Amino acid sequence: MAESRFNNPYFWPPPPAVPGRAMAEPRTPSTDGTLDEFAAPTHVEEVREQMAAFAGHHASAGRRVVLITSGGTKVPLESRTVRFLDNFSSGRRGASSAEYFIESGYAVIFLHRHRSLYPYNSMFSSMNMLEALKFRSAEDASSDAAEVVVDQQVFPNITKVLKKYQEVKENRLLLPVEFNTLSDYLHLLKASAQALSTIGSMAMFYLAAAVSDFYIPASEMPEHKIQSSNGPLQLSLNMVPKILSPLVKDWAPQAFVISFKLETDPHILLEKARRALDTYRHQVVVANVLDSRRGYVVVVTPETQTELILTDEDEKNEVEIEDRIVSNLTSAHKKFISQQNC
Amino acid sequence: MAESRFNNPYFWPPPPAVPGRAMAEPRTPSTDGTLDEFAAPTHVEEVREQMAAFAGHHASAGRRVVLITSGGTKVPLESRTVRFLDNFSSGRRGASSAEYFIESGYAVIFLHRHRSLYPYNSMFSSMNMLEALKFRSAEDASSDAAEVVVDQQVFPNITKVLKKYQEVKENRLLLPVEFNTLSDYLHLLKASAQALSTIGSMAMFYLAAAVSDFYIPASEMPEHKIQSSNGPLQLSLNMVPKILSPLVKDWAPQAFVISFKLETDPHILLEKARRALDTYRHQVVVANVLDSRRGYVVVVTPETQTELILTDEDEKNEVEIEDRIVSNLTSAHKKFISQQNC
Repeated sequence: MAESRFNNPYFWPPPPAVPGRAMAEPRTPSTDGTLDEFAAPTHVEEVREQMAAFAGHHASAGRRVVLITSGGTKVPLESRTVRFLDNFSSGRRGASSAEYFIESGYAVIFLHRHRSLYPYNSMFSSMNMLEALKFRSAEDASSDAAEVVVDQQVFPNITKVLKKYQEVKENRLLLPVEFNTLSDYLHLLKASAQALSTIGSMAMFYLAAAVSDFYIPASEMPEHKIQSSNGPLQLSLNMVPKILSPLVKDWAPQAFVISFKLETDPHILLEKARRALDTYRHQVVVANVLDSRRGYVVVVTPETQTELILTDEDEKNEVEIEDRIVSNLTSAHKKFISQQNC
Repeated sequence: MAESRFNNPYFWPPPPAVPGRAMAEPRTPSTDGTLDEFAAPTHVEEVREQMAAFAGHHASAGRRVVLITSGGTKVPLESRTVRFLDNFSSGRRGASSAEYFIESGYAVIFLHRHRSLYPYNSMFSSMNMLEALKFRSAEDASSDAAEVVVDQQVFPNITKVLKKYQEVKENRLLLPVEFNTLSDYLHLLKASAQALSTIGSMAMFYLAAAVSDFYIPASEMPEHKIQSSNGPLQLSLNMVPKILSPLVKDWAPQAFVISFKLETDPHILLEKARRALDTYRHQVVVANVLDSRRGYVVVVTPETQTELILTDEDEKNEVEIEDRIVSNLTSAHKKFISQQNC
């Protein structure tokens, strides 16, 4: 058992073989969902109540509710954190999907990493805003009561997007919740699952966040900034408990649950997606490869496997793959609800 | 020598004592400045030329030039990067300092992490932009040719800031250069130092970026996403060569150089600042502690030690500590130039 770590190409760099020295057993992550090892954010109860009220309100009006997770998680290396591990994710998929879910009649709880992309805001994301603003008139520039307007040559869609955003806000279709660290994420996801359990199969979980698989427990974390003055750094990271397991089994057993699987190696992708469905018994895995994720995904269910592909024509027309993903999943969710009610 | 690693509280977690097994020697970082182990960004030559032209232009007009580095560096754990190490830094100090340097008559090369804070843009930083925009009139909202204006209740300074920004742009006082990874940063800093060496003591280096002390060499990096299916993760990180050494000695020996020292433990801060000055023989270390960095820094030179503190009164008046830091350093730079010319 312990020996297998020496043959694992991903256990890296491989530890030197030391004759007669037994390696420590890998710590298996607990899956009971207590999250005792992770500090809860102080506002978790308050957020749980907000989410429950939001879900109840919309479900009673016959509206389905999706919890979207989006962005990467931060894993501190010191308790007074200067350094941290992060996961690549701008939050583009989550933010864009939120817009399509709202378009499809859903109410959205948007559980996202602080400063990751936000629905209807992606046009601003890598923009120096001052390049998109101008004085309304030349006289304005020299007056103190100058009006500053958006340059519609820079943002040709600003009118449409602002209208849409204001409509969504007026109808309270979007509830934003922020996380920063892995600990925040785990506790807030648990709270959201408990909040959404009251609406049964009307709830969808769309778990698009890039969540760390590894972390350093608070008890093993140094308080202060790690010093570089004494040589190279060795880090030992524990495995993060798979929260999908209690979510599906205990917290929201009637919900429609979608997880995401991102790999860089296409050869192992589908097998890993299938294994996740076997292990966690949820409804869908959306499988994608880092380099092609904007134009190609596979929607995997226990019975089916559907490729969604953007053609050159689609890309010319600025079709986003999230439009296709959301369309596929909202249909599947509808079917799921009607089957539950039989 | 190797034994000392067992007693180092920062070599963490401490490796188990294995009788008779010698630990590997710490790899000492090369300081010759070749950067062979780090992949250069493809546009480094082009950027070097831009920076040299920018510096030459301003110096010949009698204007001093400061190279500001800002934001944290990204250290990939895989060559097709899903995971990375990062350093805490929003880039606030660098961006704000750039504004004060321009105010003081400097031209600024702003070498910053992609998406970190940008001069004159900090008000937008944790803002949902759509909350700060509105239709110019109620009729506008329903028209296709609607004008969208900035809500000056949200951004009361927008007129002043936009004017300032446009002025700075017109006078070409700010040259932005972006980095993302540690490798980008190292190569671009080297290029900037070479570019600025032509203007001698008119150049200041204000190295405020939070640069990783550790990295994984390309040769030891796995290609694909590290798998979590086979147990905990052990990482071995090399030390990043101290680039300050060749910068001061070889690349820009006549420049006025300021490095930053950020610690979480105030007890070791000043000793570390002094040790840095002894080691690298540059002019100034700005020393600060994570928790109090917005209100307290110590400017350390070989001869002096000056505390800069914001009072409650200052904070009420929204004074920024960068104003004080820049004022201290521009005076010192002036004196430095006149001494060089004696």
